[in-house]
Amino acid sequence: MKLVRAEIIAIGDELLYGQIMDTNSHWISQELDLVGVKVVRKTTVGDNRADILAAFAAAEERADLILITGGLGPTQDDLTKPLLAEYFGCEVVEFPQAVEAVTSFFKRRGREMTPLNILQGHLPSCCTYVPNEVGTAPGMWFERGGKYWMSMPGVPHEMKKLMKDFVLPTLPKVVALPVIYHKVIKTVGIGESWLADLIKDWENNLPEHIRLAYLPSLGHVKLRLTAFGDNLKTLEQEVEVQIRLVIPIIDKYVYGFNSETLETAIGKLLKNAGKTLALAESCSGGYVSHLVTTVPGSSAYFQGSVVPYHNQFKESVLGVKSKTLETFGAVSEETVQEMAAGVRKLFNADFGLSSSGVAGPDGGSEEKPVGTVWIACAGEDFMETRKLQLTQDRMLNIQLTGVAVLNLLRMCFSRKDK
Amino acid sequence: MKLVRAEIIAIGDELLYGQIMDTNSHWISQELDLVGVKVVRKTTVGDNRADILAAFAAAEERADLILITGGLGPTQDDLTKPLLAEYFGCEVVEFPQAVEAVTSFFKRRGREMTPLNILQGHLPSCCTYVPNEVGTAPGMWFERGGKYWMSMPGVPHEMKKLMKDFVLPTLPKVVALPVIYHKVIKTVGIGESWLADLIKDWENNLPEHIRLAYLPSLGHVKLRLTAFGDNLKTLEQEVEVQIRLVIPIIDKYVYGFNSETLETAIGKLLKNAGKTLALAESCSGGYVSHLVTTVPGSSAYFQGSVVPYHNQFKESVLGVKSKTLETFGAVSEETVQEMAAGVRKLFNADFGLSSSGVAGPDGGSEEKPVGTVWIACAGEDFMETRKLQLTQDRMLNIQLTGVAVLNLLRMCFSRKDK
Repeated sequence: MKLVRAEIIAIGDELLYGQIMDTNSHWISQELDLVGVKVVRKTTVGDNRADILAAFAAAEERADLILITGGLGPTQDDLTKPLLAEYFGCEVVEFPQAVEAVTSFFKRRGREMTPLNILQGHLPSCCTYVPNEVGTAPGMWFERGGKYWMSMPGVPHEMKKLMKDFVLPTLPKVVALPVIYHKVIKTVGIGESWLADLIKDWENNLPEHIRLAYLPSLGHVKLRLTAFGDNLKTLEQEVEVQIRLVIPIIDKYVYGFNSETLETAIGKLLKNAGKTLALAESCSGGYVSHLVTTVPGSSAYFQGSVVPYHNQFKESVLGVKSKTLETFGAVSEETVQEMAAGVRKLFNADFGLSSSGVAGPDGGSEEKPVGTVWIACAGEDFMETRKLQLTQDRMLNIQLTGVAVLNLLRMCFSRKDK
Repeated sequence: MKLVRAEIIAIGDELLYGQIMDTNSHWISQELDLVGVKVVRKTTVGDNRADILAAFAAAEERADLILITGGLGPTQDDLTKPLLAEYFGCEVVEFPQAVEAVTSFFKRRGREMTPLNILQGHLPSCCTYVPNEVGTAPGMWFERGGKYWMSMPGVPHEMKKLMKDFVLPTLPKVVALPVIYHKVIKTVGIGESWLADLIKDWENNLPEHIRLAYLPSLGHVKLRLTAFGDNLKTLEQEVEVQIRLVIPIIDKYVYGFNSETLETAIGKLLKNAGKTLALAESCSGGYVSHLVTTVPGSSAYFQGSVVPYHNQFKESVLGVKSKTLETFGAVSEETVQEMAAGVRKLFNADFGLSSSGVAGPDGGSEEKPVGTVWIACAGEDFMETRKLQLTQDRMLNIQLTGVAVLNLLRMCFSRKDK
C-alpha cells in the first residue's frame, strides 16, 4: 500500500530569523506518524510572496497532503491567505459564518474589534471554512486533484485544536491510511555503533516489512521498530516476536519501551517494589533530583536530596569522614561511598545515590582531569560504584552524570530485585 | 549591500517522523541572524537518496551558504556523506588525520572502536576536513561556484562546537557580511505587552537604522536592539545611547545584557559581594540548584542545597517546626520562611532561598490549587516571600518557580546591596 505523503510548511520571518522556535511542525509530524501518514518534507519560508508560492508548488509536486501553519494574522505581512487564493485561482470573499465567529470571539473575550479583525472572516472562495474556536484566524481546507491542503494559524494551541478537531478526524474519510505498528526500545549505557554491532545478525534477519531505526541522544539510544501491513493485531504480534528475539542480546541496556524515560522507568521500579530513594549530588549539582522530580507522583518514592557543594557539608550534613576527604579527596570512590551511605541514612531511604566529580572547566588535575566523576549506589547490604571519564564540557558532564547515576540505580535495582 | 542568503537543511527520518525535535535549525538561524546572514529557507528531509539530492540542488539554486545537519552516523541509514560526495562528484576516501582523530577520541574515552567508527574518518575527497573535537563524525566544508557548504553532525553540542569554532569564524573570510551591532537587554518578571507599554515612547523615537525586537521566553523577555550601518564603533555608541535612555524606565526588571543568564547574573552579584547562597527546594525539586551549578565557578558562592521532598525532612534536616507544618501546611508562607532560614543556617550561608508548592498534576486542593507556590529569601536581617499562582503543567511550574526564586534573590540582593 502506498503511504499518503505529507509536507508541512511553516510560514514566517520570525521562524527563519530564530525569534520563534517552530514547535508546530514537530508536533504535526508526531501526529501524522501515529496515523501512518509519511511526512516527506518540512519546509520553512519567510513572509515573501515568491518564496511562499514556490513552496506551495513544490509541495504539491511532492505530497498528497499539505499542512500549512502561520502567516494568518490580521496584518499586511501575513500573506498566507491571499496567496492561497491566488494559488488556487479564486477570490477572497466574505464568509458570513466566519465573520460571525470572529465577532462573537471578541464579544466573548470582552475585547474590541478592529476592521482588520473583521477581514479575518474573509476567505478564499474555493476553500472549506474550518471554524477556529480558540482564536480569530479560521482554518482553511482545500482539495485539488486528489490532494488535500489545510492552512492553520501559527499559534500552537490553535493549530493543535484544528488538527485534533478537524484534520485528524477528516483524514481517514478522504485518504487511505495504512496499518502501521510502532514500538521503541529504550537503551542506556551503550553507544549507537556498539549497539548496532551487537544486534547486526538480528537486524539483518528482520522481515522486509519491519524497519529498524537508531535514534541516539545524550547517553541513550532508542531502537524504533516500524511494521507495515494489513492487520494491526498481526503487526503487533510480529513486532513482539522480534522484540523477544533481540531483548536477550541487549537485556542489560534496555530500560523501557515507547514514551518511557529513564526517570519514569526508575520510578516504576521503585514504586512497584515499595522502595525509596535519596540523593547526594556534588558535581551533578541537583540535576539528578530535578530529573527524578519531573515525574508526576515521584513523591511516592523520592525522599529527598542534599547537594553538599562544599566539602565541609559532605562532612557536616552527610557524615563523610574528614579523614576520607583528606586521604582520598572529594572525587574518589571512598568519598562517594560515604556520601551514598550517609544520604541513605539521613533520608531513611532504601537506596542512596551519590556523585562527585570535576565538572569543569576548572578544578582538574593531572590525576583527576576535568570529566573525572565517581558515582555510587548504596543499599542495605551492598555498595556499587563506577568511575566515569566524561568530557571537557561542564553542562555535558552534568547531564551525562545524571544519566549514569540513574542507570547505576537501575542496575543495582535489578541486581537486588526485591 | 546584498545580504548573504542561507539555507539550513536538516536530514533524518527521525525529524520527519517527530521522534526528535530539530533544535539545531533554530539555533543556527539565531547565530546567522546575529552576523547578518539572511536565512531564506529551512528544509527537513528524510534518509532518502532522491530527496536529499533534490534538497541539495534546490538549496544551491536559492542560497549562497548551505548548512547541513544530520545523517552522519556510522550506520547504513546515514546517507549525507556519500550523497555529498556524489553531489560534488568525488569519491569517499580515507583522511588519515580524520581516522587518527576518531581513534584518539575513542582512546581518550577508554572505549573500544568498531570498524564502522574507523569509516567515520573516510570523507569526500573534495571536502575540507573540519575536526570534531567532541564527537566522532567530522565536519565537512565544500566550496563550489562561490557558494559554501558545511555538513555537521546532528548531535546539538557537536554541531554548535563546529559552528563556533569553524563556520562563524570562517564566514567573514569568504563572504561579505554587513556591519551590524546587536545588544540584548535581559529582563525578568514582566510580560511582553506590559514591557512594550512601558517603553513605547522610547521605542517610537528610535532612529530608523536601529531596530527593536521582543523575544519572550519562559518568565523572561529579551529586548534586542539591532543597528545597521557602515562603522561598528559608531553603531555601538548609538546603541549605547539608546540603552542609557531606556534602562531607567525598566531598571528593576533588567538583570543583564547579551548572553548573560539569570544564573550568571546572580553568580556575579554574589561573587562581587563575597556572599554565599544555600537552597531549600521542595516543589522545584533540585531545579534551582541545577541552574545555579550550571555556571562555571559557582562553587565560589554556592554552599549547597537540600531537597526535603517529604515533609518529615523539612523538620529533621531543615528544622521547620512540626507545629508550622501542621497549622499552615507545607505550601505556606510560614513554612518557606522556616525552610529558607533553616537552610541558610545549615550551610552557613549569607542567603537562604526556598520553594514549596503544588507542582501537579495531583496534590491540588480548593484552597491551594495546582500551581500554588510559595518562595522565600532569608538574609541575616530580612525575610522576603512571594506567592506565585502558576499553571496546570508540572514541568512549567518547576521552571517558572526556578525563575521566580532566582529573581527573588536578585531583588533581595539589590535591596541589601552590601
